[in-house]
Amino acid sequence: MGLDTAASTLDLGRGSFLHAGPPITWHEASGPLRGALIGAALLEFPDESPESVAARFQAEQFSLEPCHHRGAVGPMAGVISQSMPVFVVQDDVSGREAYCTLNEGLGKVLRYGAYSKKVLDRLDWIERVLAPAISGALADTGPIDMFAMIGEALQMGDEGHNRNRAGTSLLLRSLAPSLFESAESTSVAAECFRFMAGNDHFFLNLTMPASKVAADAARDIPNSTLVIAMARNGTEFGIQLAGTGDRWFTGPSGMPKGLLFAGYSEDDANPDIGDSTITETVGLGGFAMAAAPAIVTFVGGSAELALRSSLSMYEITMGEHPIFRLAALDYRGAPVGIDAALVCRSGLVPVVNTGIAGKAAGVGQVGAGLVEPPMSAFAAAIEYFGTPSDGRESRV
Amino acid sequence: MGLDTAASTLDLGRGSFLHAGPPITWHEASGPLRGALIGAALLEFPDESPESVAARFQAEQFSLEPCHHRGAVGPMAGVISQSMPVFVVQDDVSGREAYCTLNEGLGKVLRYGAYSKKVLDRLDWIERVLAPAISGALADTGPIDMFAMIGEALQMGDEGHNRNRAGTSLLLRSLAPSLFESAESTSVAAECFRFMAGNDHFFLNLTMPASKVAADAARDIPNSTLVIAMARNGTEFGIQLAGTGDRWFTGPSGMPKGLLFAGYSEDDANPDIGDSTITETVGLGGFAMAAAPAIVTFVGGSAELALRSSLSMYEITMGEHPIFRLAALDYRGAPVGIDAALVCRSGLVPVVNTGIAGKAAGVGQVGAGLVEPPMSAFAAAIEYFGTPSDGRESRV
Repeated sequence: MGLDTAASTLDLGRGSFLHAGPPITWHEASGPLRGALIGAALLEFPDESPESVAARFQAEQFSLEPCHHRGAVGPMAGVISQSMPVFVVQDDVSGREAYCTLNEGLGKVLRYGAYSKKVLDRLDWIERVLAPAISGALADTGPIDMFAMIGEALQMGDEGHNRNRAGTSLLLRSLAPSLFESAESTSVAAECFRFMAGNDHFFLNLTMPASKVAADAARDIPNSTLVIAMARNGTEFGIQLAGTGDRWFTGPSGMPKGLLFAGYSEDDANPDIGDSTITETVGLGGFAMAAAPAIVTFVGGSAELALRSSLSMYEITMGEHPIFRLAALDYRGAPVGIDAALVCRSGLVPVVNTGIAGKAAGVGQVGAGLVEPPMSAFAAAIEYFGTPSDGRESRV
Repeated sequence: MGLDTAASTLDLGRGSFLHAGPPITWHEASGPLRGALIGAALLEFPDESPESVAARFQAEQFSLEPCHHRGAVGPMAGVISQSMPVFVVQDDVSGREAYCTLNEGLGKVLRYGAYSKKVLDRLDWIERVLAPAISGALADTGPIDMFAMIGEALQMGDEGHNRNRAGTSLLLRSLAPSLFESAESTSVAAECFRFMAGNDHFFLNLTMPASKVAADAARDIPNSTLVIAMARNGTEFGIQLAGTGDRWFTGPSGMPKGLLFAGYSEDDANPDIGDSTITETVGLGGFAMAAAPAIVTFVGGSAELALRSSLSMYEITMGEHPIFRLAALDYRGAPVGIDAALVCRSGLVPVVNTGIAGKAAGVGQVGAGLVEPPMSAFAAAIEYFGTPSDGRESRV
């Protein structure tokens, strides 16, 4: 585990931008994705204006590509541009890597489509100050075992997608002394610590690439209907299967249902967006809700819903996670390995916990809730295998 | 919240020693309590030997008094001597204070009756280095709202007695930047941080005085059968009621049942010991087990036991805690305010989570489990009110 720049790890040129979810054009993009793209372009081309970079996106002078195509994942709009620092999470067994930017905090931030000077200045600070500080700390601590830490956080009320308070606390507890010992000054380290401690989702941007690298371990298993990616670009929800390479199967992004922050109505909400469903793909988030009864009041629901959500997911998964264990279910492993065939056969779609983005660019988060991915995406995937009535028949 | 020395806050002289539980003599004391008293005496009289201080205890040249009599609480043996630094936790409403030493860590430590040079050197370091460092950090952060932090830890898998991983993590997250900014050097702050982070129970020694100061708010309510203290000295378990002043009602300390660490048998276990049952007195520990399904495998049991433990305690308590809420019970407040009359009437004794001390001095912790306090202590208290068949009749 370490840090690097998107330019070098993701081989990103100055006019290339990665985004969450399956492929999309500027024309199809929703408000928050457009806003984030404008912000990232202003970061790379500081002499331009929001209008001029928007025009260049419109004229297809900039390239757009899913994060997933470069081994990366991004929360919400998920936009990554070349100067951004990224966490590098490595699978010790395969050597495979996955990447994610550093979490910017709450409120008006790029991933929700905000691109004010304050947002860009924060991204600049993350690049100049925070990333080197964390890098220095990690050089001292050595790599952190992400799955062990996520597993521990599940014993502490996190489900790893929408609640990350324990994970962030455990990460800070691990990093703190090394952060201060390696920083250029105590005040710089304190500034970085307070920034990270001010945002319970800081850990999410490490859980996501850890999930991605785990899911990617199952890539390219011939004929397998195992889901290895679920991602939303704010317009479409898409999945990739182990047996179908980089092909996406998509359906329309759903509208999350849950609690909206004071002052917002459903009219303000954007359809589901972000690569953070990679957590559900490996048994976290909605699949691990039994670990996080505290999350249900945030997304709307009762403690029983938390148990029921996890229990129902065993019906569409192939296994139980050896490290992500659910204490409330007597340490049963979280349901893991979504089988698109089982989804189609059972009529049960994955349970997804998510933040809700405002549909206007730059509004930020307007709520949090549960969202149902479109069955059509899973059906399209199984149809591709040629035997829509029984996907399993096509497996060897 | 702050730090001071036992000498000044507790008005302790050099030959005076406080201990956990109800009053006890050296003659009646169990192995871990004797070991801890020897260690504390060696700390105060460094020129003496274990044998010579033991002889002075035997000859009653040193005075013994319960921590509770001075507004203090101590985990396990709970021995406090004059040079030890103590946390000072204040009730904002009443101005009342409660005190507790700093947690020494795991393994061979004074509170389990160990008194080797290593144990005494660590206590010396706590006095010289750790306490001033924490004091400096608290001067910068200002007082920490303990009940808010404990309430948050209950949403993160702690029950506040036997599992304190979340509380310790949240405390460190709050203190870290100020600790480093106020320390005499980064290396001293890092040493202190690593010491605290190396022990998930560090937070317990703050939860205990916070619990004590809350329970003491109900002291001296005429005729009330509310339990305001439960404590064990390793030989006897005792309770105090709101309506009976400083009088103790006691019964024999039970033997905890649970999991023993590898290499130990039940023969190695000491009867129940420590003031940490002050946490159960205010709705934490066994009463809040529904918050901590992960604890049940440690103390032996299933996730259902965690829910059942909390639910059964509503039968013997007067209220539901407004801040300590149990997410798994849909945020119902933890059962709080044990009524000794309800205990006698229902035949249900408080559920206590506890560490298990080795019975030989200095062995340290040998396990963790659940223990049943003796019904006789509650019966004696109700008998004292004069109407043993219905304690409530005696209340005004």
